[in-house]
Amino acid sequence: MSHAVNSSPLYAAIDLGSNSFHMLVVRHIDGSIQTMAKIKRKVRLAAGLNDTMALSPEAMQRGWDCLSLFAERLQDIPKENIRIVGTATLRTATNVDIFLDKANDILGYPIQVISGEEEAATIYKGVAHTSGGTGRRLVVDIGGASTELIIGEGFQPKALTSLKMGCVTWLERHFKDRQLNKKNFDCAISAAKDTLAPILAQYQQIGWDTCVGASGTVQALQEIMLAQGMDEVITHAKLKRLQKQAMQADHLEELDIEGLTLERALVFPSGLSILIAIFELLELGYMTLAGGALREGMVYDMVSELQQDDIRARTINSVQSRCQLDVAYGEQVATTALQLLNACGGDNCIREPHGEALLTTAAKLHEIGLTLDFKKAGEHGAYLLKNIDLPGYTRAQKHFLAEVIRRYKDQLSPLPPQHAISAESATRALRLLRLAVIITHRRQRDLQPNVTLVSNRDHLTLTLDKRWLERNPLTAAELEIESNRQSDLGWPLFIKAV
Amino acid sequence: MSHAVNSSPLYAAIDLGSNSFHMLVVRHIDGSIQTMAKIKRKVRLAAGLNDTMALSPEAMQRGWDCLSLFAERLQDIPKENIRIVGTATLRTATNVDIFLDKANDILGYPIQVISGEEEAATIYKGVAHTSGGTGRRLVVDIGGASTELIIGEGFQPKALTSLKMGCVTWLERHFKDRQLNKKNFDCAISAAKDTLAPILAQYQQIGWDTCVGASGTVQALQEIMLAQGMDEVITHAKLKRLQKQAMQADHLEELDIEGLTLERALVFPSGLSILIAIFELLELGYMTLAGGALREGMVYDMVSELQQDDIRARTINSVQSRCQLDVAYGEQVATTALQLLNACGGDNCIREPHGEALLTTAAKLHEIGLTLDFKKAGEHGAYLLKNIDLPGYTRAQKHFLAEVIRRYKDQLSPLPPQHAISAESATRALRLLRLAVIITHRRQRDLQPNVTLVSNRDHLTLTLDKRWLERNPLTAAELEIESNRQSDLGWPLFIKAV
Repeated sequence: MSHAVNSSPLYAAIDLGSNSFHMLVVRHIDGSIQTMAKIKRKVRLAAGLNDTMALSPEAMQRGWDCLSLFAERLQDIPKENIRIVGTATLRTATNVDIFLDKANDILGYPIQVISGEEEAATIYKGVAHTSGGTGRRLVVDIGGASTELIIGEGFQPKALTSLKMGCVTWLERHFKDRQLNKKNFDCAISAAKDTLAPILAQYQQIGWDTCVGASGTVQALQEIMLAQGMDEVITHAKLKRLQKQAMQADHLEELDIEGLTLERALVFPSGLSILIAIFELLELGYMTLAGGALREGMVYDMVSELQQDDIRARTINSVQSRCQLDVAYGEQVATTALQLLNACGGDNCIREPHGEALLTTAAKLHEIGLTLDFKKAGEHGAYLLKNIDLPGYTRAQKHFLAEVIRRYKDQLSPLPPQHAISAESATRALRLLRLAVIITHRRQRDLQPNVTLVSNRDHLTLTLDKRWLERNPLTAAELEIESNRQSDLGWPLFIKAV
Repeated sequence: MSHAVNSSPLYAAIDLGSNSFHMLVVRHIDGSIQTMAKIKRKVRLAAGLNDTMALSPEAMQRGWDCLSLFAERLQDIPKENIRIVGTATLRTATNVDIFLDKANDILGYPIQVISGEEEAATIYKGVAHTSGGTGRRLVVDIGGASTELIIGEGFQPKALTSLKMGCVTWLERHFKDRQLNKKNFDCAISAAKDTLAPILAQYQQIGWDTCVGASGTVQALQEIMLAQGMDEVITHAKLKRLQKQAMQADHLEELDIEGLTLERALVFPSGLSILIAIFELLELGYMTLAGGALREGMVYDMVSELQQDDIRARTINSVQSRCQLDVAYGEQVATTALQLLNACGGDNCIREPHGEALLTTAAKLHEIGLTLDFKKAGEHGAYLLKNIDLPGYTRAQKHFLAEVIRRYKDQLSPLPPQHAISAESATRALRLLRLAVIITHRRQRDLQPNVTLVSNRDHLTLTLDKRWLERNPLTAAELEIESNRQSDLGWPLFIKAV
């Protein structure tokens, strides 16, 4: 076949966790990681540890059965593209060698039981490769039998901790009677704080600007919040609200919380308790969900081409290349949009730290819908943006980008509620993007008019050379229509020819 | 910027028609044409012809005004990538030189007034480049002041005719009083038959297998049918039904037909009359809409890379490359699906002429949704297939491919009603594709099991080697689940290990 380049090699990352075993199969395409298969089995290894910290034969068998499934799939993956790690329970089990001997035989590849610190470092790598923004970040990953806390900046971890506390161990220790009462929650939270206490001073001293959560516990919490109509940001108030909801059921078996999957229900109260303890002890304001953790860290470790510092730039380049966007034109629109934004000046700017980056991203990707069809390009663009993997952007930011790109030309409607930036900033970004698209529609910088923009609160006045407008009747007509469209929505826009 | 390759050159095709002027701006990307801009102005040039066949000053001015808009956009397009043609009205107008002198000045590029035969040949090129299938095809294009009829096979036209009859001229001649009565329709249809009569014998002698309609008239008719819940195939019965609907209004101004746009309303009865005459005189059974006509023919003429005989192969290659699909794997799934189909044999095959081609296409493109996300890959694939331009496939075929690909793995549900192939064939294609995907899930031909398939009406029995299944527990488990899924829907599937 002609497109041999597309048969790019597969990579596999397998993580033998304390609650579940996971296998992730991906390929590397044009600066991005594409997921080809995900296989997960709830092996509950940690639940099979007895009082002397030995794995029961049943638990081992569950693990080996699962690995037989994984082994089949591993056969078509190059040996050097496979990483298999074991975590907390395998670190702890006194009879781990018995398990590993047979497991290695089944897989045909060696399992590395990694230390808590290595686990924390790999998790951080997975987060750093899938999160945007600058500054110092605190990463929290609550697993089945361990919780990792990392502080880092860019790709550089500054503190790595793995604590012997997880949603499975805390379930067995503090919710053994399966009662969802205040006493159990108080004990679980208090014990988690005790476990966290030794690192508190060090972490407070290093400090952090933002906080992200990785792993299934945080993801499950976010899914519940979204299902209940809250926004994606996790706060202490929301966690306490969930605790209250949980306590309305007496028993774990009766737990009925909108958005909670059956699969996560058992370890929900214990995971929630640990997270509440972390919020309270470290005095966290809010937390967002990371796009990746341990398995992603393993994958990014193998794919050396993806070692790039600016995650958002890598993502934009990858999407531009995969969707064959006109890169030079995207740059032209972005530059123009930012010039317009700067012209607004002072009070009328977009003040959020991510605001300019989001406007730039929207400008560089606005034509993405053309990949599908010219007709309804905005709608297609919104669909693509909403569903494509965009490392470096949070869920709310993806949603915002999608809604702006949905409206990049033609009919205009107000943006729906979103949580990426304030409504005022969002409207301003949309208005300026649309103007930038019209002004640049001839797609060459030397054919672009000189404009000045004056902003007085919501009132925008765009001034262009009269003779230029006469020579460019199509742009003149479009600007007039745009002036009506924006003004009709209560966003006055005046076009002035001088 | 790094991706200079993406700033691929633009092409423009401008068509100065008798009713509207159109400008199409495209770029060539990876074996496909991507529309970047469409500008259309209803200039009504033909309406400006007086009794001596001279263009009125007002009509000329409308034309020049429109060309000034086009001219602005032409500046950023390489000279050699621009084609501008004039058709019937400019062929006819006695004072055409006055119009052309100023028009050429405005555009800065020469307008070619092409002959009716050249117009027919270019339309045929546009159809051949956007239609799949084999055999001889009759192409019908009803314009404002001319109607082209072409018979061709592949890229080779065998008969080229341009008749001086169009929806604008027929409006002025037979619906001058704007009455929608039987008399006017009868006259219009009868006059159209008289105009067609001279070519009847020649066309009947050459013959054709399929019939496609190009241009706005046929497109408007199809849109009305779809809006009224009919399928996409145009038949004589449906056309007569529309005539009856139209005659419920006395006057053209009162015309109110669901799905008819205001823009097309004026020339709707005249265009309908001409098409009815063609159906009756040439005894057509049905007609489908072509994906392109004159402007597309002009574009494909310029982009020499796209001169390929097998339109569907070109389309598949282009989508595979643009979406970075694993081509070798697509080939493996397609081969496997066809082997299973052949094993069904005799009565249980897909009998439609396009059936195998559609199954092959679905197999080669089934992973397209992974471009967006692994989660809901089927749903994403359906969205992409439905909205992407697929030269060589009709609307109904695209719809079918989308619905099959929506269901290529995991949950299974019955296919919705579709018009590409029979419901039985469609279900069979879906079942075999799903089996092929499971059997090949290790993505290497040498890791694929030998299977035999026996079909007894709806009952499928798939036999595999017992030891192979033991060594491949993941596939074995998936086959068992699949057996349940298909059987639950009333499509019995037995997996036999021997």
